[in-house]
Amino acid sequence: MQTSGSRIRLFVEDVLKHAGSVPLQDMQRHYLVNVMRLRVGDPVTLFNGRDGEWQGRVAKVGKNDCIVDVGSRLRAQRPEVGPWLAFAPLKKTCTQFVVEKATELGASRLLPVFTSRTVTDRVNLQRLRSYAIEAAEQSHRLTLPIVTTPTILADLLASWPDDRQLLVMDCSGDGEPLLGALSTIYALVEEGRQQPPGLLVGPEGGFAEPELDDFASLPFATSVMLGSRILRAETAALAALACWQAVAEERA
Amino acid sequence: MQTSGSRIRLFVEDVLKHAGSVPLQDMQRHYLVNVMRLRVGDPVTLFNGRDGEWQGRVAKVGKNDCIVDVGSRLRAQRPEVGPWLAFAPLKKTCTQFVVEKATELGASRLLPVFTSRTVTDRVNLQRLRSYAIEAAEQSHRLTLPIVTTPTILADLLASWPDDRQLLVMDCSGDGEPLLGALSTIYALVEEGRQQPPGLLVGPEGGFAEPELDDFASLPFATSVMLGSRILRAETAALAALACWQAVAEERA
Repeated sequence: MQTSGSRIRLFVEDVLKHAGSVPLQDMQRHYLVNVMRLRVGDPVTLFNGRDGEWQGRVAKVGKNDCIVDVGSRLRAQRPEVGPWLAFAPLKKTCTQFVVEKATELGASRLLPVFTSRTVTDRVNLQRLRSYAIEAAEQSHRLTLPIVTTPTILADLLASWPDDRQLLVMDCSGDGEPLLGALSTIYALVEEGRQQPPGLLVGPEGGFAEPELDDFASLPFATSVMLGSRILRAETAALAALACWQAVAEERA
Repeated sequence: MQTSGSRIRLFVEDVLKHAGSVPLQDMQRHYLVNVMRLRVGDPVTLFNGRDGEWQGRVAKVGKNDCIVDVGSRLRAQRPEVGPWLAFAPLKKTCTQFVVEKATELGASRLLPVFTSRTVTDRVNLQRLRSYAIEAAEQSHRLTLPIVTTPTILADLLASWPDDRQLLVMDCSGDGEPLLGALSTIYALVEEGRQQPPGLLVGPEGGFAEPELDDFASLPFATSVMLGSRILRAETAALAALACWQAVAEERA
């Protein structure tokens, strides 16, 4: 599962098409030229989340700019319709971890959500997006996950779409086994009757009682559990995404 | 899945029995008294991996010592027979992550293994064990995983036990789907014909070709894959353990 080569892969905003060219941003220029020491003619792989993946070549390296010429298409764009992950912001390194791993494991949307026991009160969206870009580049994703503006839990639940189940990772031990819940939803997704699920993980201190009561009263929410041990929030998020991935692969 | 209380839980080496008492080590004394500000009479939960989990109470706080009296047993000891995880040591924070998450997710044995592309050449076993202890305390495990002395891959394979499959997390895309492989093994474990599997993840740069050839020639080794994206080593380790946990729970 590890990357075996050192091929450099960059996310860009520009249109990618044969014989096009793409100017790189400052940070990307710095990375290519100063860190990776690429020179004119060296290969770079490009993707933008819309036009597939393309073979590029460094065409010009200036003092303040760098241009990559676009050659042939390596992979066509295809939909990457993974689960949504709603998560209470955690301590900085844990949040970084959640964003990176969720991107690797195919989450299509990351929704920071403030719950009553959430300790962190600020989210640097720009930074979360940069973690997601780096993880998408390294994991050979063709898309970025959408990182949404933080919301409070009540608003998230009030605006939750009808066609998507919400699986709440619950430590109370009363939840359904995770794998069964995911398999049931996967079958509904295959039949076109549901979107992939949303997964919800709470903050370090878990959900408050009134929040758990709310989940129990919502027709689209199901509490799920994974094992008898107490998982940290970031572990629960990753475990649920990995299991969805495994179910999807098994059925594919 | 998150811990909902602040109950303090400590791993100790001593025998735990009703009306016994346990002297705490310096670091634990410091944590209880200076960090958590516990006083005489305050409750502490204790486990030692052999005698179950016990209710303790701080009985004495001295300048250089701290004694906890043991009351009633909260949980009986039971076997925690999770998979083994063999992993190439990674950069420091990634290795810490692997040990912590593997402990949370129930790995029974952690085997650091040097492969041909492993960059790190030293492993601080004492530190790995301390990560495992902290994760066991927080995750309400009753045991610690065994952390073995680092070995080289050839020796690990040469001494691999007959009654345990080795699932190699492989990025080549040729492996079996992970969930199916785990389910097959789980059935054999239930029948008493196999032990839980060993999971093997490589270093940042993956396995070398000769290593992959070796795996293909070994009767106990199976290459498995999880999804079409390139997972980082630590993500692959965690994903495989989470899936095993989910399979075990589904069948329980």
